[in-house]
Amino acid sequence: MRTDVTPMLAERTDLAIPVPYLVFIGDIQNPTDAKTGYGLVEWRRDWCAAQWRLPGCPVDLGLPELAPTAAHAAGARTLVIGVAPAGGRIPEHWMPALLEALRAGLNLAAGLHDRLANYPELVTAARASGVRLFDARQAPPGLVLPVGSGARRSGRRVLTVGTDCAIGKKYTALALERELRGRGVAADFRATGQTGVLISGGGLAIDAVVSDFVAGTVEMLSPAADLAHWDVIEGQGSLFHPAYAGVSLGLLHGAQADAIVLCHDTRRHCIDGYDNFPMPSVEECIALNLRLGALTQPAIQCVGISLNTQGMSAAQRQQACAELAERTGLPVTDPIAMGVQPIVDRLLQRCN
Amino acid sequence: MRTDVTPMLAERTDLAIPVPYLVFIGDIQNPTDAKTGYGLVEWRRDWCAAQWRLPGCPVDLGLPELAPTAAHAAGARTLVIGVAPAGGRIPEHWMPALLEALRAGLNLAAGLHDRLANYPELVTAARASGVRLFDARQAPPGLVLPVGSGARRSGRRVLTVGTDCAIGKKYTALALERELRGRGVAADFRATGQTGVLISGGGLAIDAVVSDFVAGTVEMLSPAADLAHWDVIEGQGSLFHPAYAGVSLGLLHGAQADAIVLCHDTRRHCIDGYDNFPMPSVEECIALNLRLGALTQPAIQCVGISLNTQGMSAAQRQQACAELAERTGLPVTDPIAMGVQPIVDRLLQRCN
Repeated sequence: MRTDVTPMLAERTDLAIPVPYLVFIGDIQNPTDAKTGYGLVEWRRDWCAAQWRLPGCPVDLGLPELAPTAAHAAGARTLVIGVAPAGGRIPEHWMPALLEALRAGLNLAAGLHDRLANYPELVTAARASGVRLFDARQAPPGLVLPVGSGARRSGRRVLTVGTDCAIGKKYTALALERELRGRGVAADFRATGQTGVLISGGGLAIDAVVSDFVAGTVEMLSPAADLAHWDVIEGQGSLFHPAYAGVSLGLLHGAQADAIVLCHDTRRHCIDGYDNFPMPSVEECIALNLRLGALTQPAIQCVGISLNTQGMSAAQRQQACAELAERTGLPVTDPIAMGVQPIVDRLLQRCN
Repeated sequence: MRTDVTPMLAERTDLAIPVPYLVFIGDIQNPTDAKTGYGLVEWRRDWCAAQWRLPGCPVDLGLPELAPTAAHAAGARTLVIGVAPAGGRIPEHWMPALLEALRAGLNLAAGLHDRLANYPELVTAARASGVRLFDARQAPPGLVLPVGSGARRSGRRVLTVGTDCAIGKKYTALALERELRGRGVAADFRATGQTGVLISGGGLAIDAVVSDFVAGTVEMLSPAADLAHWDVIEGQGSLFHPAYAGVSLGLLHGAQADAIVLCHDTRRHCIDGYDNFPMPSVEECIALNLRLGALTQPAIQCVGISLNTQGMSAAQRQQACAELAERTGLPVTDPIAMGVQPIVDRLLQRCN
């Protein structure tokens, strides 16, 4: 433990990816590989100047088509790789396109396993053009991450937590941000995973941060703000996950959340990929998050449940939500199918 | 979260620092700066071939004096920097001594903030001599850390946990190892901090590990073993620490501990350096460790309390231990003043 490091709130320097974006989808054949691209269009349409596809790409994000030079002339500042290529590596035949973008004066951003900075030709081209490479899975080189201070800070914060990984925490947080903004409430999504970083143009992939700095990094990503401002912090993992619970706890402590929203899927029986670890009940997951979260925010409360009901009929969905709402006394909704109005109603009613 | 990475138990390659050691204490003037050196003499006397001091050093570990070439001829394999220089940096006037050691064929190990690998002259000299640099705060370059599997593994494990940082977890774990070995029980101390790494010649500083890999790294550091073998795992931080609780939780989950020993100091009122965070009670700290630890080891139990009573009179010490033992029903002892026999008695009685 770093008992010799002074707790501090560092400046959030160099975390912002310049917008607008030119969204690159290469020549992928399957729309599900373009999750980040579709997320950008869904959540940050204003930032998407155009898309750029290689010949033979049937996937279409519905954006205007522009090549790098034209996109740059139209104001685009960053080429975002909006797809996840198989294996997490950049296909060799994409390289000329990426170099063309750098030479056209665009920054380059991606959330691949493979770091952009590991490709010398990209580094050289970026340097020559005076543009930057953004690896959404990595802290920017030279950024000093802080140790958590635990100091109470101003502003409001809501954190999405989950019974498991990959259960809707990012989507729910983005939906909460949109609903709050739609009501005229100042709100900012705070990304803690690589897809969220690309979608929001900032934040850090918390699972790539050295363990001592997780809570402090979350403090840095959601700094003190106006009293009425809401940070909507993207959660990660689960307190019931045998590999990642520590990440979730550091995130919970750093968030100092006034409110949590629990994300769940009633049809999942085990932690994904861990057959010997049954899913926790909604009630015990909420209770443990509240108990542990109270260390840094004693007033923490749960204001709703986000239920993944993908594939259910409308009647099944209504029934699943109604049953869980009855059991817990909380608003329950599927943000994709039903929005998050009842959760935001509760949030603003209870935390104001 | 790395849902695409297969959980695995990696091989523990390249983590062992070659013994015996030549312990370097430079020209420090204050014995308290030689914590690592004294720890080596206390816990691994057999590995300490000799000490090496620069002119004018009044501190004496009580080891034979040998310069690098003589030490190498006498069998020494690694020069360990057994002191913490002010600021965590290597003083410039030590550099000729370190280079002399490398040229004499000794590996070089240290647990400084400053990485040995950041000194090009050390890297060059090590390469020329075919020896290695060990940074006890860093995972060896190229070591692939695993994601936690949560899979039950054979062998017994006891973990030292604490109400706070810097409260006796390393010392207690080393004392437990010694007491177990003294009774003929196969036992190995498993280091998770830089001083423990140097003392035990292996392990990893868990606070320097990327957060996603903390639980998996602890699984790797205490691998499946003979049914009767005990791993004594050094704990870190505290579940009640606003900056480091996530590290402690990942460590607890990865340890799959049959038993925990709680380390505490009744005179500390707040988490060190965090005046707004009162120390938890012994009872709530034990209860939370057992509850959260049960995720990966349902049979986890607490077998004793290690109390830091430094500065108390013998009568005060006895009273402090007796009161806490009465309150909790657990054996309570100060390992420095009283040893850990009652805790090991309970451990072997309850976990066999």
